Amino acid sequence: MSKKIKVGIIGSQFISHIHTISLKRCAAAEVFAVASPTPGNARAFAAKHGIPHHFTDYAQLLALSEVDMIVVGAPNDLHCQITLAAAAAGKHVVMEKPLCLNLADADRMIGACRKAGVKLMYAEELCFTPKYVRLKQLLDSGALGAPTLIKQSEKHDGPHATHFWDVNRSGGGVTMDMGCHAIEFFRWMLGRPPIKSVYAQMGTLVHKDKTEGDDNALIILEFANGVVALAEESWTKLGGMDDRAEVHGSKGVAYADLHHGNAIETYSAEGYDYAVEKAGSTKGWSFPVYEEEWNYGFPQELEHFVDCVQNDKPPLVSGEDGRAVLEVLFAAYESARTGRKVELPFQTDAKRPHDLWKPKR
Amino acid sequence: MSKKIKVGIIGSQFISHIHTISLKRCAAAEVFAVASPTPGNARAFAAKHGIPHHFTDYAQLLALSEVDMIVVGAPNDLHCQITLAAAAAGKHVVMEKPLCLNLADADRMIGACRKAGVKLMYAEELCFTPKYVRLKQLLDSGALGAPTLIKQSEKHDGPHATHFWDVNRSGGGVTMDMGCHAIEFFRWMLGRPPIKSVYAQMGTLVHKDKTEGDDNALIILEFANGVVALAEESWTKLGGMDDRAEVHGSKGVAYADLHHGNAIETYSAEGYDYAVEKAGSTKGWSFPVYEEEWNYGFPQELEHFVDCVQNDKPPLVSGEDGRAVLEVLFAAYESARTGRKVELPFQTDAKRPHDLWKPKR
Amino acid sequence: MSKKIKVGIIGSQFISHIHTISLKRCAAAEVFAVASPTPGNARAFAAKHGIPHHFTDYAQLLALSEVDMIVVGAPNDLHCQITLAAAAAGKHVVMEKPLCLNLADADRMIGACRKAGVKLMYAEELCFTPKYVRLKQLLDSGALGAPTLIKQSEKHDGPHATHFWDVNRSGGGVTMDMGCHAIEFFRWMLGRPPIKSVYAQMGTLVHKDKTEGDDNALIILEFANGVVALAEESWTKLGGMDDRAEVHGSKGVAYADLHHGNAIETYSAEGYDYAVEKAGSTKGWSFPVYEEEWNYGFPQELEHFVDCVQNDKPPLVSGEDGRAVLEVLFAAYESARTGRKVELPFQTDAKRPHDLWKPKR
Amino acid sequence: MSKKIKVGIIGSQFISHIHTISLKRCAAAEVFAVASPTPGNARAFAAKHGIPHHFTDYAQLLALSEVDMIVVGAPNDLHCQITLAAAAAGKHVVMEKPLCLNLADADRMIGACRKAGVKLMYAEELCFTPKYVRLKQLLDSGALGAPTLIKQSEKHDGPHATHFWDVNRSGGGVTMDMGCHAIEFFRWMLGRPPIKSVYAQMGTLVHKDKTEGDDNALIILEFANGVVALAEESWTKLGGMDDRAEVHGSKGVAYADLHHGNAIETYSAEGYDYAVEKAGSTKGWSFPVYEEEWNYGFPQELEHFVDCVQNDKPPLVSGEDGRAVLEVLFAAYESARTGRKVELPFQTDAKRPHDLWKPKR
Repeated sequence: MSKKIKVGIIGSQFISHIHTISLKRCAAAEVFAVASPTPGNARAFAAKHGIPHHFTDYAQLLALSEVDMIVVGAPNDLHCQITLAAAAAGKHVVMEKPLCLNLADADRMIGACRKAGVKLMYAEELCFTPKYVRLKQLLDSGALGAPTLIKQSEKHDGPHATHFWDVNRSGGGVTMDMGCHAIEFFRWMLGRPPIKSVYAQMGTLVHKDKTEGDDNALIILEFANGVVALAEESWTKLGGMDDRAEVHGSKGVAYADLHHGNAIETYSAEGYDYAVEKAGSTKGWSFPVYEEEWNYGFPQELEHFVDCVQNDKPPLVSGEDGRAVLEVLFAAYESARTGRKVELPFQTDAKRPHDLWKPKR
Repeated sequence: MSKKIKVGIIGSQFISHIHTISLKRCAAAEVFAVASPTPGNARAFAAKHGIPHHFTDYAQLLALSEVDMIVVGAPNDLHCQITLAAAAAGKHVVMEKPLCLNLADADRMIGACRKAGVKLMYAEELCFTPKYVRLKQLLDSGALGAPTLIKQSEKHDGPHATHFWDVNRSGGGVTMDMGCHAIEFFRWMLGRPPIKSVYAQMGTLVHKDKTEGDDNALIILEFANGVVALAEESWTKLGGMDDRAEVHGSKGVAYADLHHGNAIETYSAEGYDYAVEKAGSTKGWSFPVYEEEWNYGFPQELEHFVDCVQNDKPPLVSGEDGRAVLEVLFAAYESARTGRKVELPFQTDAKRPHDLWKPKR
Repeated sequence: MSKKIKVGIIGSQFISHIHTISLKRCAAAEVFAVASPTPGNARAFAAKHGIPHHFTDYAQLLALSEVDMIVVGAPNDLHCQITLAAAAAGKHVVMEKPLCLNLADADRMIGACRKAGVKLMYAEELCFTPKYVRLKQLLDSGALGAPTLIKQSEKHDGPHATHFWDVNRSGGGVTMDMGCHAIEFFRWMLGRPPIKSVYAQMGTLVHKDKTEGDDNALIILEFANGVVALAEESWTKLGGMDDRAEVHGSKGVAYADLHHGNAIETYSAEGYDYAVEKAGSTKGWSFPVYEEEWNYGFPQELEHFVDCVQNDKPPLVSGEDGRAVLEVLFAAYESARTGRKVELPFQTDAKRPHDLWKPKR
Repeated sequence: MSKKIKVGIIGSQFISHIHTISLKRCAAAEVFAVASPTPGNARAFAAKHGIPHHFTDYAQLLALSEVDMIVVGAPNDLHCQITLAAAAAGKHVVMEKPLCLNLADADRMIGACRKAGVKLMYAEELCFTPKYVRLKQLLDSGALGAPTLIKQSEKHDGPHATHFWDVNRSGGGVTMDMGCHAIEFFRWMLGRPPIKSVYAQMGTLVHKDKTEGDDNALIILEFANGVVALAEESWTKLGGMDDRAEVHGSKGVAYADLHHGNAIETYSAEGYDYAVEKAGSTKGWSFPVYEEEWNYGFPQELEHFVDCVQNDKPPLVSGEDGRAVLEVLFAAYESARTGRKVELPFQTDAKRPHDLWKPKR
């Protein structure tokens, strides 16, 4: 058996907990260190998960020679610099979505990792979500004929991390936060054909007091093969996370619902601990999920990435894929401003997607 | 009790059967005559439904002094001339969707009926569909807060009437055929605020051998009050009719499904008579509906229109509403060609919506 | 057109409101009078529904020569005497379930109506519930093959009328109140073959403080043709009415759910007026029904009974059917005491079913 | 890290494949050998799964000193002798359900394993099914209040192994094959309180040409704490496996469906490879599952048993539990003959449960 892959976690919030729990289910991985700048966070995180090393400066984590691979859950505006530093330190990188804030940074990250001979892996867990993996098998098997329309949607009542309200740090609102899932989902599901055009309808409909970013969006992609894809995203949907997909084809159709179609339908007069992400109250009717990380595919995703590092395999989702998603995000924000379908490829020097929707004056 | 309203049916196809069955459930109505130009059709229709009079020429039907009101299920390109003739004959008109082929015709129809003092009623049955009526009550009661996104979708595997494949007669494809339902649904659900813009994505993805009209469409409306509406329409969806709506608001969300969420979930090894419109085979799993006309709201709709005539009330859906839908349809086809959001009000002299998507050369 | 049937309502509680609302949707009926002993109730009921006559003594209602038919929603222990009086007055009778308290009374009621030449109609609305009517059509059409197992279940959190807690008046608990629905449902669905045996499991699991009647029950019927039927009944199920059926056959299976499979799935942060019978709170997720009376089949049922009177037709559900249900109820309570399957036909002089489960000492 | 647990598989049919696939997902286990008497079966099985050793005689497998634990998927009538031999060889035993054919054998197996100091583990995977594990957590957390009624049901169209049609080898029909799942599910869900009584309704409704065993059954258990449990089992249900549970309590209710509520709802005009166990055709509508072993809990179950062996922990489900289930099965068949509720504890010298229903003449 090959030696275990030692992993460094950068970040200590929501997604970093999920990554760590998932890595613990992966026999080939060992979580070796965690870094988070807020005083005390890394220490508490390490204590909770039994991680031997913790730092407030991620440079110290990268300096550990034992670390093979890092998994980054930091704010979007730090993705580029962390990747460059990790590449310089010879560490493989698993980067949480979205890849980074702009296309120039994406190119820099991809270039640096390539030059350093480390893998840049893009953490799009929908490509590992078991129900969606089966959905792709159905499509690939011909069960649905040639695809015509493909849909994916994520909706809840607002971002986990408060820095996401600040578009300077996040680069954009719900499209940037959750639309990026749908975009890579579409590319993966269809075998990554070229994208011809993007149209987006965005609005700040409920959270104007908190952000100037978009809190609701509809995004339409046309692929070069004629398939149309529709993403629906919302930060204003109450009642718990909603994550659904549909594939329509010339010979059939399939519907997949990760929550209401998967959960235990429950009525509780007095409520209980936890139903699902963003569920609000658990009194009355609710839809509790089970094995939540597994149902989203997080352990499977990280097991795959660990395997890529351990056995030098190409990752299913790479930095190039993350860049392709980012290009679509920029095109989507451009479309939201102009009210036009934007053709791809799309070039832009914009620093962040949001700037194309609401240019700084 | 007021005297019964005598009704003339113009048309003998799919929808005219539904209208007649529905009128028979309406105590205040009596189906008195039917007209259809194809030799034998009106006779067979009259025999089947026990209607006393039948004609091949609708002018003869309009000449009957007993007839109070006509219900028109003829091809789209005949809607205008029938309405003008009915107005001249002093008959109230219930016009099947879409109202007619172009805005000039719509204005002529509205003007003629107004001048003649007869009602022009627009047969949008979704405004009477019981599940959707309850959905509107939920929204109006404040259960969902302020609306943000509203969705409606109809999908099946192709039009009932073959003339719909010919865009010269139908005026357009699935957007014209089924998109018009969604547009009036949105207007009605929201209390008919002004529409600010329309964007449409159309394609002929499966039925290129049969039509140059659109067989799949996504349509996005922005209302003046900021609400976004999304219509999904398809003529390529197998497995039976799909008719669904969602209302998302700042305080809640509601999902209504007329078929899978309403039907009897059934497995039959050998199949049976009928599951639902366009179901294809009934072997294996299927979703049979029950009281199909009632579940769509046809009898309720026609009872309302009969009541409008009997007691001189304004109809819930009028010729003006039909015209407003038509304006959106023109804007949608314009958007499909230009790839741009089209602002409303939208003026056009085009003869039919399809011409704006694929202009004649 | 035949003359309208004038109807007298006896009772002013939950079910009498439903009966009256339903009769108003029936063109051939006119609600002419209401009687209820509690001072003020009949007056308020008449005012609410626009009924011309109201009485505290039902004998006065029966004395009205105009009344053709009565619809009884009174407590179970009054069913017999009201029917005898109505027969003596020459009025047709629609009797709410269960028919009465014991078999001797049932025989008396049937005999009196037969002798007086009036119809005794048994108000089992499940035989008119549109979804169940379609379910029966599926079975009858052969879609499911030969039936093997048939299930029906009604569950909510307790009876509408408080007198139902008193087994002396009601004759029994949830089996008497709701099990009677399932029993007639089974008979009707299968074409009323003889019943071979009955087994019942009963308990007072939650409401011991309110009643000595059963609040939860499982009842198994064996029909002479080998089909097994399973009824589940509960007065302790929170979260709103649950009314479901399944038919399993040698060639297929069908599932029908009147509520969760029919409703609008809704999340409301602040709640709204009404979701469904016994729903409790409407905050959070709920399943609002629509056209509730129609979905249960009440107007269809009463239209049928009015038609039976108007045109002298045999009712779909008669006093004899009500008696057959009562026989099964007695056998069920006998089984609950003995822990044995009880063979039918079952003779008993017991005054009420409950007495067989918990004999008076 | 402790050394890996080497596992021997006894059997080469349906369930042995599932066991082997599941063990491969378990880092601490290594499948080391397989034994199956049919010539060629063990060889093919070993080749397919990459297992180093294969035998036609399980005694040879037991003779391997490296083997720590066996997992038995052999016919029911061999369970006892295999366990006795394994105990004598000092191997831990995972025994597929039902434990064995009669109570005397069960006592012998338990005694032999205890004396030999090896673990006897009972492979009831429902205790590891993720959705049911979450359901138990909901109940244990108080979300549903005190339990009143608990239901579990498994239905498909007939046993995988043909020897199950022969009651001499299987010991009984669908109650023996699938009812045993429900019985242990109830015990586990409720914390294994004593069972007070058992009532069973059995019939051979469809497969009389193949078996004299029961192919449909309803089983009612009363627990000492007053909770009632209802098991529904069928070997005649078409359209794919159905596996569902409900827990009703004084404060709430929860519904869990492993298939229709978990699957991807799919329509395929031409069909595809596999939807779900016993699905029949995949043309038209179907409900494909994904990660089927995981969704049932097989890998989790075997990981647990491997952990019990590796770290000397008590198994969640033991031979004693398997015996308790068997006692209920005997009582159920007794009840099916007598038409009476059978009180527990129940003693019997019967050789197999079926003999109590249809005694040999």
